[in-house]
Amino acid sequence: MKPVKQLKIKSKKVSELIKSMKDTGFNGKKLARACLVYEEMIKKPGCTKFFGLAGAMVPAGMRGIIRDWISKGYIDVLVTTGANMTHDVAEALGHHHLQGKSQVSDKELKKKKIDRIYDVFMKNEVYGDMEDFVQRLEINDRTSVKELLWMIGRELNDPESILTTAAKKKVPVFCPGFVDCGLAVQIALNHQRIVLDYFKDLRELINLAWDAEPAGFVLIGGGVPKNHIMQALQFTPNNASYAVQITTDTPSPGGLSGAELREGISWGKVNPEAKFVSALCDATIALPLMAAYLE
Amino acid sequence: MKPVKQLKIKSKKVSELIKSMKDTGFNGKKLARACLVYEEMIKKPGCTKFFGLAGAMVPAGMRGIIRDWISKGYIDVLVTTGANMTHDVAEALGHHHLQGKSQVSDKELKKKKIDRIYDVFMKNEVYGDMEDFVQRLEINDRTSVKELLWMIGRELNDPESILTTAAKKKVPVFCPGFVDCGLAVQIALNHQRIVLDYFKDLRELINLAWDAEPAGFVLIGGGVPKNHIMQALQFTPNNASYAVQITTDTPSPGGLSGAELREGISWGKVNPEAKFVSALCDATIALPLMAAYLE
Amino acid sequence: MKPVKQLKIKSKKVSELIKSMKDTGFNGKKLARACLVYEEMIKKPGCTKFFGLAGAMVPAGMRGIIRDWISKGYIDVLVTTGANMTHDVAEALGHHHLQGKSQVSDKELKKKKIDRIYDVFMKNEVYGDMEDFVQRLEINDRTSVKELLWMIGRELNDPESILTTAAKKKVPVFCPGFVDCGLAVQIALNHQRIVLDYFKDLRELINLAWDAEPAGFVLIGGGVPKNHIMQALQFTPNNASYAVQITTDTPSPGGLSGAELREGISWGKVNPEAKFVSALCDATIALPLMAAYLE
Amino acid sequence: MKPVKQLKIKSKKVSELIKSMKDTGFNGKKLARACLVYEEMIKKPGCTKFFGLAGAMVPAGMRGIIRDWISKGYIDVLVTTGANMTHDVAEALGHHHLQGKSQVSDKELKKKKIDRIYDVFMKNEVYGDMEDFVQRLEINDRTSVKELLWMIGRELNDPESILTTAAKKKVPVFCPGFVDCGLAVQIALNHQRIVLDYFKDLRELINLAWDAEPAGFVLIGGGVPKNHIMQALQFTPNNASYAVQITTDTPSPGGLSGAELREGISWGKVNPEAKFVSALCDATIALPLMAAYLE
Repeated sequence: MKPVKQLKIKSKKVSELIKSMKDTGFNGKKLARACLVYEEMIKKPGCTKFFGLAGAMVPAGMRGIIRDWISKGYIDVLVTTGANMTHDVAEALGHHHLQGKSQVSDKELKKKKIDRIYDVFMKNEVYGDMEDFVQRLEINDRTSVKELLWMIGRELNDPESILTTAAKKKVPVFCPGFVDCGLAVQIALNHQRIVLDYFKDLRELINLAWDAEPAGFVLIGGGVPKNHIMQALQFTPNNASYAVQITTDTPSPGGLSGAELREGISWGKVNPEAKFVSALCDATIALPLMAAYLE
Repeated sequence: MKPVKQLKIKSKKVSELIKSMKDTGFNGKKLARACLVYEEMIKKPGCTKFFGLAGAMVPAGMRGIIRDWISKGYIDVLVTTGANMTHDVAEALGHHHLQGKSQVSDKELKKKKIDRIYDVFMKNEVYGDMEDFVQRLEINDRTSVKELLWMIGRELNDPESILTTAAKKKVPVFCPGFVDCGLAVQIALNHQRIVLDYFKDLRELINLAWDAEPAGFVLIGGGVPKNHIMQALQFTPNNASYAVQITTDTPSPGGLSGAELREGISWGKVNPEAKFVSALCDATIALPLMAAYLE
Repeated sequence: MKPVKQLKIKSKKVSELIKSMKDTGFNGKKLARACLVYEEMIKKPGCTKFFGLAGAMVPAGMRGIIRDWISKGYIDVLVTTGANMTHDVAEALGHHHLQGKSQVSDKELKKKKIDRIYDVFMKNEVYGDMEDFVQRLEINDRTSVKELLWMIGRELNDPESILTTAAKKKVPVFCPGFVDCGLAVQIALNHQRIVLDYFKDLRELINLAWDAEPAGFVLIGGGVPKNHIMQALQFTPNNASYAVQITTDTPSPGGLSGAELREGISWGKVNPEAKFVSALCDATIALPLMAAYLE
Repeated sequence: MKPVKQLKIKSKKVSELIKSMKDTGFNGKKLARACLVYEEMIKKPGCTKFFGLAGAMVPAGMRGIIRDWISKGYIDVLVTTGANMTHDVAEALGHHHLQGKSQVSDKELKKKKIDRIYDVFMKNEVYGDMEDFVQRLEINDRTSVKELLWMIGRELNDPESILTTAAKKKVPVFCPGFVDCGLAVQIALNHQRIVLDYFKDLRELINLAWDAEPAGFVLIGGGVPKNHIMQALQFTPNNASYAVQITTDTPSPGGLSGAELREGISWGKVNPEAKFVSALCDATIALPLMAAYLE
């Protein structure tokens, strides 16, 4: 057994810090291993890197990291929530999220027409501009969600946008719970003839999982993105050889979001010999560290 | 200000216990208030009670409670995850979930073809039977998810099933992230012509929110069900007058699952004068207590 | 393997509810098992039941439960925090804790001389009365903390007091971190000659652990009470045969408060064949349920 | 209101990363602010910096950071747990903690005489060496805990030891729950005549708080160290002008460990105009980041 190395700061570089954290304990060690496993995944020839993104990551300022990772080829398949796409559109339309605070009167915010996401604020007028944008969209009567999102990305034409970058790089964006978000509500109300062909997305994701040799995944938060990626891997011969999870949920309440990755071995979603690590950490701490490490 | 009443056990009845917990502090008081607010919602004439159900509640033995609440009219609109529906089908097909343990080798479980959900086990052979069932289904080429789930409920014809009961009682079941579950994967692979008309579900949910006078919601866990219900309320004149949340997530990581209900006031999802309460509690503790209280 | 029994409410009695929760999953099942293991401990002839009490349990209205359990012989040795003793004294001096709320301006509370403990308030004037009480105490120049607390209990002479009841029933009260509380500060400032003989307490606790045949422990929260009890058991031949933990902490950050009970086996604190269970639950929910079950 | 700046990695330096995290949201922003507030505290002339250290920080490899911060004058008063001191002694006696894993049989570890602290292991033989060391100590019959710990630090004479460094730099080390740890048990059993004069420590801490102009505190975890520091500040005219907390606990269960720092304003422990921030983060992630930032 290797000793725990009492950490000494010898360098101001993130990469050196992460390497020294690898020989400590608890979630510091896990987060360091998360960086290393993701790095190995990126370097592995042929590895298809599925990336699950839950949480309010765009409002919290993590948009640029995801955008850059798509651009650099660190993300091959993005599975995310409608909310992150809604807020990506908001930023692309020129709106900023605002640094607010959580100890505030929500009644006062309502009067000021400001929506709150913990300590991030957004002006409600965003939805008006978004509706204008949505109304201008020309959408096929039947479209997969991926095609719809790529089309939106092209229309936004914002080099800092996750959707624009994904469309440009042909990185599929799956959004299994898309209908729960503000963007989807506006599309549904303004384009009554549209049918979203979700099963087309689902079959494409399963095919991508089927063909992955090997497969790896990185999960920021849990929720539907986590389940979607892992479910696709369950029904294919190639379960995950690499897996990284950053979450603030814990296993004992039994929900998938907090489930240990090793649980996936029983289902055939994670390979018994996989390299995997889960770190209990707010993603707004973990993502910047991982991004600086991988830079 | 009322004093905290030091709790003394004077009765063995759940209802008395809950009433005495109301005058204490912390989450004991909150859980008691959750029972009372839900009770008030149920007694309020005309109140449309939206119910969000995330987490692995069917595997954990909470199926009967949800089924009974639908049957009794405590739930007017169910918004849930694909996983809960998949496991409802598994039980209806005669399979049981099993009492396992979390400290176990997942590699051994895989060899024994047993899938693990924390301390609950399920034989993987369930999926074979489910596929047989799915193949026999006659599904319209274009269907909303609600219609599909009701049809499945009727086919299952199991009086203990959530879906059978919802179909019988005409309680809409929305499942915004349905494609992430095992049942959906099997339908997608076995019925390649089917298109799910998700926007039809979405518009129906928005109409239900629009017509609710008043609206109330109860959330077991967060995730897509929480966002779907609250998003529908945002775009209608009638935001929620009552709101109850049972969750193990906390606000500061910024995800919607852990967001305080008062945050919904800023968005117009929760009425500024609403009665609302959120209790930090595993739903497998809270649901039995709430059910016994409401009995 | 036993099946998960889908819970149906057949009785309004807490004891029946707990028994049915035992056959479910996740923390509902764990909390039910906590009741059963504690019950078994109580019924076991000769079992010394160590009870660790952390958290702000007296302010939250849990004082009566602890007092009654001491009175009934469910607690043989109490290890707790100074804060719980300080607030027990406050109540015994005729002060009530108050039902407040957490969403409040702490600056306003300060102006009103109200101290906040999450959603429980206490008037700061309590400290004036407590100082009067402390000044009147006649304390031996050298005293163990246990003797001091028993003496205070006798002086308070409040039948609802934890300390009075413990003194009357000769249940030792250990308070390893006593000096961190308001009561201790007042004693230290008003009785400058007093020396607390902590090591006498420690040796007495170790002797109690040494003689326990068998030993069992119940932990409400973690902290110093948990460590004190488990440390005493480590250095004795009789480690715990029964162990129950109610906590809202989780294992991966590595702190003892969230550590799994099975970890204690490696140290020799918990017997390899012990019956033990840890439930993730706010104690203000768990304690009332356990008390009603054991009634 | 300032916009959330979408974070872009422009530098590999920790200090630049922290500065960019300051303009994001959630706990990433909070952790960045924690670095900045601590930096401000350090630069503030005359500020007495109280430092509360709970959790198994020495086993997890954080010893060097604490030692260096004492050496550099970033910590003026250390309040910690007995466990961290016990493990500091273990390391100083030449023992290493070991990199283990949490998914392991504790029964097997017991057979191998290895103690587990989540994913860190320690050979039980450490206690034999520690007892030899304790027996050799010459301890005054009556000693404050601070004097005892400084004396132990001098005896250890290990430049990497927290205790040796604190003794050398005359940084007081208070340990209000000292008797709960293995080191204290060995002293109590081997030096039966010793009386620990805890109230001397307490009065010294209160005097330090009284004289602080201004006072600031940094809390790693909660527990007795947090309460001890904040309680001392309550009874003095100078409450904290700066406060930083790193914790994995949350407010709603009502325990002090998870309590918001603003709650301290109501008690007079934190100044209404104080700069304070609490970040929800495992300290094994936060401490290395903070140390690299402050380097």
